[in-house]
Amino acid sequence: MQSTLIRNVRLSGQATSQDILIEQGHIRQISDRVSPPDHAVIIEGNHRLALPGLIDGHAHVDKSLWGMEWYVNEVSRELPEIINNEREFRRTREFDSQRQSERILRQAISLGTTHIRTHIDVDTEIRLRHVEGVLATREKLAEQIYMETVCFPQSGLLGRPGTLQLMDDALSLGCDYVGGIDPSSFERDPVAHLNAIFDLAVKHNKGVDIHLHEPGELGAFSVELITERTRSLGMKGRVTISHAFCLGEVDPARQDTLIQGLADMNIAIATTAPSNRPVPPYEKLRAAGIRVTAGNDGIRDTWSPYGNGDMLQRAMLMGLRYRWRQDREIAQALHAVTQGGADVMELKNYGLSPGCQADLVLVAGQAVADIIANPPQERTVFKAGKLIADRGECLF
Amino acid sequence: MQSTLIRNVRLSGQATSQDILIEQGHIRQISDRVSPPDHAVIIEGNHRLALPGLIDGHAHVDKSLWGMEWYVNEVSRELPEIINNEREFRRTREFDSQRQSERILRQAISLGTTHIRTHIDVDTEIRLRHVEGVLATREKLAEQIYMETVCFPQSGLLGRPGTLQLMDDALSLGCDYVGGIDPSSFERDPVAHLNAIFDLAVKHNKGVDIHLHEPGELGAFSVELITERTRSLGMKGRVTISHAFCLGEVDPARQDTLIQGLADMNIAIATTAPSNRPVPPYEKLRAAGIRVTAGNDGIRDTWSPYGNGDMLQRAMLMGLRYRWRQDREIAQALHAVTQGGADVMELKNYGLSPGCQADLVLVAGQAVADIIANPPQERTVFKAGKLIADRGECLF
Repeated sequence: MQSTLIRNVRLSGQATSQDILIEQGHIRQISDRVSPPDHAVIIEGNHRLALPGLIDGHAHVDKSLWGMEWYVNEVSRELPEIINNEREFRRTREFDSQRQSERILRQAISLGTTHIRTHIDVDTEIRLRHVEGVLATREKLAEQIYMETVCFPQSGLLGRPGTLQLMDDALSLGCDYVGGIDPSSFERDPVAHLNAIFDLAVKHNKGVDIHLHEPGELGAFSVELITERTRSLGMKGRVTISHAFCLGEVDPARQDTLIQGLADMNIAIATTAPSNRPVPPYEKLRAAGIRVTAGNDGIRDTWSPYGNGDMLQRAMLMGLRYRWRQDREIAQALHAVTQGGADVMELKNYGLSPGCQADLVLVAGQAVADIIANPPQERTVFKAGKLIADRGECLF
Repeated sequence: MQSTLIRNVRLSGQATSQDILIEQGHIRQISDRVSPPDHAVIIEGNHRLALPGLIDGHAHVDKSLWGMEWYVNEVSRELPEIINNEREFRRTREFDSQRQSERILRQAISLGTTHIRTHIDVDTEIRLRHVEGVLATREKLAEQIYMETVCFPQSGLLGRPGTLQLMDDALSLGCDYVGGIDPSSFERDPVAHLNAIFDLAVKHNKGVDIHLHEPGELGAFSVELITERTRSLGMKGRVTISHAFCLGEVDPARQDTLIQGLADMNIAIATTAPSNRPVPPYEKLRAAGIRVTAGNDGIRDTWSPYGNGDMLQRAMLMGLRYRWRQDREIAQALHAVTQGGADVMELKNYGLSPGCQADLVLVAGQAVADIIANPPQERTVFKAGKLIADRGECLF
């Protein structure tokens, strides 16, 4: 396999530029001046910053409308209505989940995303169409992006007989995690919902990643139930709670108790850092050793028109939401969209050190806080040492 | 003066494209097909959206570090420390307020800002340097941007004897409004502070625009004091409260009472829609007939590294903060960065109708909600009918 030498890039926190030698898809050497091996491809970094590949820890690539005719959003703010509206949309319009997931992934890849965990809707109407579509995209883009998939009962499990069997089938088809949704506020029976999804996880020997939007003490109760099941089923380290707004709402002492439980069971948190909801206390979670990843959630779908797949924009929104202004505070946002995601996905060989897989992004900027506060659109992206996107365009 | 014909642009809410004829700096005609007058400059709109010029209703262009060496932010979150840190910065580094205000304004203009209200620091250390710098920039860019200036006692008025006289001098030099800052939490004497700035406003026959970050009931008390002074001094319609977080914190009944007072006195609100603070209740304010403008606040200064001068990005952040997802909800964000600002500035002839001054921005997108959810960087900007920026570059 070809060697590549990237000249003159700045690694995070460093003032001077270095060269990165890539061989057989991995970083071989980083130093002030590397002599190119014979026949090496040489790429001039122009003193841009080199970041490890960006990681989107919570996505819904199966439902994006990216590149389709404009969808005029007229839906109310209530969760059940938003979900019903989406099912209605799918009944009445042509929607190709393979095509759409590929479109939004190409967009994300062009902006430097090299790893993504995506939830995929499973319900009794679309059945496994979205799972099949996204799994086909995963195969098609296997060399460009690493994808984890979560089969997700978006319309609920308990009120729609047959959904559990479809989830079971989705796991057999290749989904990596069992998804779940607000067990009390949406499903109306927390024990039944959580038992169903944890049983499925045990049956297939898979992890769990559950959407939890429930507010305050209701959400805190769900966190307790999830923590208890993680413990009793021996699933330590294999569970993620997505959103977890409630952790940002309960009082500090209650927060501490919940966080202790999460830390004991090595339960990870995925956040989108929403500006209109409470957010999990990032610093407190990290201080307790909890793995935290950030995600773009839905991008331009029937839920909301926002987003463009960029994890540096997500880092910016995270910085704004957490009121991070110091450079060292803003560095936490970069961690969340890089190493934090790698920790949640348990990636081996992730990062910018010799021996790591050469997944990296070059971006022009004065400092890490600069590219997060004002993300430039032009990126140069490498996956396993191969140049796959440049100046916002995919090269595949 | 040259005529200009802009062909094939879509006006907000319209599906088909029209032509806009500009003569003597004003919109002369908008219709499906306009025959170009002799010697008219013809510009192809390519079915982009045409928006009225964007308005930044709350800025601090005198303190931006845009284009300077990277400033490593290490300051704490406390307001007095942030302000002290900024004064210390100015003591120890070379800072040219004329140059810096021009830099950030050129950036904002390139993204379509045609009107701006900026607060300018006045204190006993920098004295009138920033006022003179920004007023020089205002003169220099008079044909490219309409600027309102507020002399702003950033370091406080009461604890720094001499500041009031400097404010007085700033108004004599040409500042348009008297600024103020948290009268209780920062100034420690609400009556003394508010009396001082309102007296100054009466003396110079100018309006008032006061920064109010005070939380909850403390802020609500300040809103009452401001409303009372507006009434007793006959300043109805000439006062703006910037930020006004407290309006988003008090209970709904208290909100109603405060809003009634604001509406009676036609007091305007300026918001930055911060994601980490309570926000004034936009819909309720508008329903009461209150004028609301949005602003970018500080852009890349010693306070915070965020922002790029783009009022469409501010509209996006506003949409996210207010959880506006429907197209008709998101249209409110466009209103806030256009007509809402014009109402607060009492602009004559603003807008996209025949007779209006031809300040407009062309931007590619499927719909208004599209360009707000995902603002494209490329804009074509006209000021008084003259093409002044294209593809992100100023043409002056």
